[in-house]
Amino acid sequence: MSDKFEKLYKELVERVREATLIGSIESLLGWDERTYMPRAGAENRANQSAYLSGLMHQKITDPRIGELLSELERSPYMKEEYSNEAVNIRELRHDYDKLVKLPQRLVEEITKTTTMSQGVWAQARGKSDYATFLPWLEKVIDLDIEKAECLGYEKEAYDALLDTYEPGATVETVSKTFSGLRDELVPLVEAIANSSVKPDLSIVNGDYPVDRQATFGREAAAAIGYNFESGRLDITAHPFTTGIGPGDTRITTKYDPKFINQALFGTLHEAGHGIYDQGLDPEQYGTPRGESVSLGIHESQSRMWENMVGRCKPFWRHFFPRAQKIFPEALGQVAFDDFYLSVNDVRPSLIRIEADEVTYNLHIMLRFELEQVLIRKDLKAKDLPEAWNSKFKDFFGITPPDDARGCMQDVHWSAGYFGYFPTYALGNLYAAMFFAKALEEMPDLEEQFAAGQFGQLKKWLNEKIHSHGRRYRAEKLAEVVTGQSLNHKPLMTYLNKKFGELYKL
Amino acid sequence: MSDKFEKLYKELVERVREATLIGSIESLLGWDERTYMPRAGAENRANQSAYLSGLMHQKITDPRIGELLSELERSPYMKEEYSNEAVNIRELRHDYDKLVKLPQRLVEEITKTTTMSQGVWAQARGKSDYATFLPWLEKVIDLDIEKAECLGYEKEAYDALLDTYEPGATVETVSKTFSGLRDELVPLVEAIANSSVKPDLSIVNGDYPVDRQATFGREAAAAIGYNFESGRLDITAHPFTTGIGPGDTRITTKYDPKFINQALFGTLHEAGHGIYDQGLDPEQYGTPRGESVSLGIHESQSRMWENMVGRCKPFWRHFFPRAQKIFPEALGQVAFDDFYLSVNDVRPSLIRIEADEVTYNLHIMLRFELEQVLIRKDLKAKDLPEAWNSKFKDFFGITPPDDARGCMQDVHWSAGYFGYFPTYALGNLYAAMFFAKALEEMPDLEEQFAAGQFGQLKKWLNEKIHSHGRRYRAEKLAEVVTGQSLNHKPLMTYLNKKFGELYKL
Repeated sequence: MSDKFEKLYKELVERVREATLIGSIESLLGWDERTYMPRAGAENRANQSAYLSGLMHQKITDPRIGELLSELERSPYMKEEYSNEAVNIRELRHDYDKLVKLPQRLVEEITKTTTMSQGVWAQARGKSDYATFLPWLEKVIDLDIEKAECLGYEKEAYDALLDTYEPGATVETVSKTFSGLRDELVPLVEAIANSSVKPDLSIVNGDYPVDRQATFGREAAAAIGYNFESGRLDITAHPFTTGIGPGDTRITTKYDPKFINQALFGTLHEAGHGIYDQGLDPEQYGTPRGESVSLGIHESQSRMWENMVGRCKPFWRHFFPRAQKIFPEALGQVAFDDFYLSVNDVRPSLIRIEADEVTYNLHIMLRFELEQVLIRKDLKAKDLPEAWNSKFKDFFGITPPDDARGCMQDVHWSAGYFGYFPTYALGNLYAAMFFAKALEEMPDLEEQFAAGQFGQLKKWLNEKIHSHGRRYRAEKLAEVVTGQSLNHKPLMTYLNKKFGELYKL
Repeated sequence: MSDKFEKLYKELVERVREATLIGSIESLLGWDERTYMPRAGAENRANQSAYLSGLMHQKITDPRIGELLSELERSPYMKEEYSNEAVNIRELRHDYDKLVKLPQRLVEEITKTTTMSQGVWAQARGKSDYATFLPWLEKVIDLDIEKAECLGYEKEAYDALLDTYEPGATVETVSKTFSGLRDELVPLVEAIANSSVKPDLSIVNGDYPVDRQATFGREAAAAIGYNFESGRLDITAHPFTTGIGPGDTRITTKYDPKFINQALFGTLHEAGHGIYDQGLDPEQYGTPRGESVSLGIHESQSRMWENMVGRCKPFWRHFFPRAQKIFPEALGQVAFDDFYLSVNDVRPSLIRIEADEVTYNLHIMLRFELEQVLIRKDLKAKDLPEAWNSKFKDFFGITPPDDARGCMQDVHWSAGYFGYFPTYALGNLYAAMFFAKALEEMPDLEEQFAAGQFGQLKKWLNEKIHSHGRRYRAEKLAEVVTGQSLNHKPLMTYLNKKFGELYKL
């Protein structure tokens, strides 16, 4: 490489790393805000965070970055499409263009409006009061449409929003995949509903003292490979994972003393996110090459560890005796098969975040369809409850009794996160694709799980996915790893096999 | 005020507030580093902190601040000496001049050297190996002398260092006060040693389960007025208090399951610091008018709550029954007077941080005298152990068995903190002056303590001290509050009375 381009590239990396470092400090502020900050510190924290995010924005949208990118895009670095340098130049261009296309006024208006509308939503949801929330939702939708117009798109505005969370994804590709998935999911849900096999939910709703849940959750998270030397597990109202930088990736959970699933599978889920972040290449930290690919790929990791590993039979072959020892009151007299069935209860339900791994995807598809028509203005926000309920009846055979348990249940829309939901189902699809490939390449994987060994799967994920950062976009990554393009077959094969056996279909 | 000066002053405040905000973020990073950060996150944390401290330094030494100060020093704001504006202009000038006088090269060299030398010290202290520490101590002393030369002084180099921690204090004034104090302290220590009254130390060294110590410590801290709505209490190896901004002042402590004093009085001490920070004027946040005066004044607050309140008889009249209930194993059969005496044990001892409130000041004076001769180069670092031991024998009548328990016991010198120690004893002196005045103005204060009421003292401190920020320098503040200039009489009156009664002198 010529000295000139080397120098320009070095400058680019230094500038981007500075912005990343500022962002990492903001992540710590956010973690502290949700874990340990004294209540009265909120205003000061808002000032600190606003300062850092302003500073970061200023650094990352510095016109000099645009100049450097323009120069480097004509450099020999670009000859090798997936080299570290070419990847960074390509992905930084993607991010930079998005950021500079949004006028400061719009960014501020979105921040202000969504902060307010989330507050209104939280209040209104409590009373299932859609009328109060409506004017805010209308504003948020208009702002998201304006944002999409600024960002630009080829086919439709929603694509621009989707691309924010899942770079490269479009309504067209996602719809095709979802539609194939739905065609096969609905009969499975029906078959399970009609099965004579019925889980005994009193098993998972027993006596699970919180301190012992914490012990068990930590053991399980450590066993699957979440590294506590470079991580922590704390308690928050809404569990999350945050990467504060190399050597520092933190997860949180939430305990219910009468329900083992919430904290346990929640911890495995966040540990899955954490393992991804812990597996990123620290040498590449601060550049796209050292970052995660997309929300969908991130979710594929959490979902795989939570469901494909955490709810599989071999996992419990290993962990059930330990669980019985830790929770003798709840599990001492319970048979293995009954426990295993009870953590795999499947049934249509109202609330997305409580849904099982079969029906969960239907909750997402419903939202994905409604988001599209809202952003296209084919559905007016005032008609959303009716559209939700009718579609819900169509998908699940039940009608929400109120909007709190209907179209107002999630925070996302009040926060302006149109385009975010599909990444959850994409995560399930990618997880199944990756997991099928892992099983193909390591046929004894489930025997290893039964022996409490999860290291080989983790290593495989580290090598195939985590260590590549944003080298490939999500769909390309799936192709490189599995040889297949994004499709619903692996997920349906997995679900049909697992639940076919469990529910004797 | 003319529009011109108003505008300039506003710009000054904005610039200084930005620097303070950056500093407050750094404080959170520091708190997290010492409480919850995963071990592997250390390098990333160092990068984050270094970035913020560089940014803060850049903001606070911006030549524009010097220009603004020069203009404003000629403004009508200065006519009223103790107005908010005049105070801020005066104190910012003090800070700015110090900061810009230190060349960046020297600052970096001090940081690098003291980081290393603290590591060497920690290792060498473990083996009481002064020879290994010596070359580092020599370097640190030379750097501190160079720093003092850059900062400038009237009489001697040590004054410049002292002024860093205690603005306005000089060797001359401090020596005079310390010398009067020593003359009266030594006979008191001797009299106590010769008293037939002997505390039973097995009382404070009983069974004190950590979780119950935490409950008791929290109750006591809350009772004296530390606000947990805007604070926290966590565990760290070395307890500290950190103000992260308005509404967010955090304290830490450390538990020993076989010794009640450490965490309890430690918590009251840090709560005292915390109450000061919580009592600063939030309207003035980010400017000197909203900051604490000096280390000495800060220490006066922690020492007052720890000793004059926390170790006084009325305090225990209220808290002893509760302590007996919480610690029945250790205190169930103990008589009040025996317990009260045991938390007020006085005896010459080797280690400063374990010293009682009588002998503590002698530990400081010894260091203060040695620091002066080291900085004057009248004592060579290689001769420090001998000088320490001979002086120690002179002050306490005992000779340290090794340097680990002698001149190597504190981290301060390895960290380059020459000039810091005196502020601890100044804290005791100021505490006694303030407390005597408080008792004079509120004669029923001790009756209130015995009833568990500490709010009136806290309110008095808020009004007389905390809310003024840096309006007055330390000595001036003492004069304004007590009508007296800094002197040792109130401390000796307090000690003679309390320990005279206790030890039947």
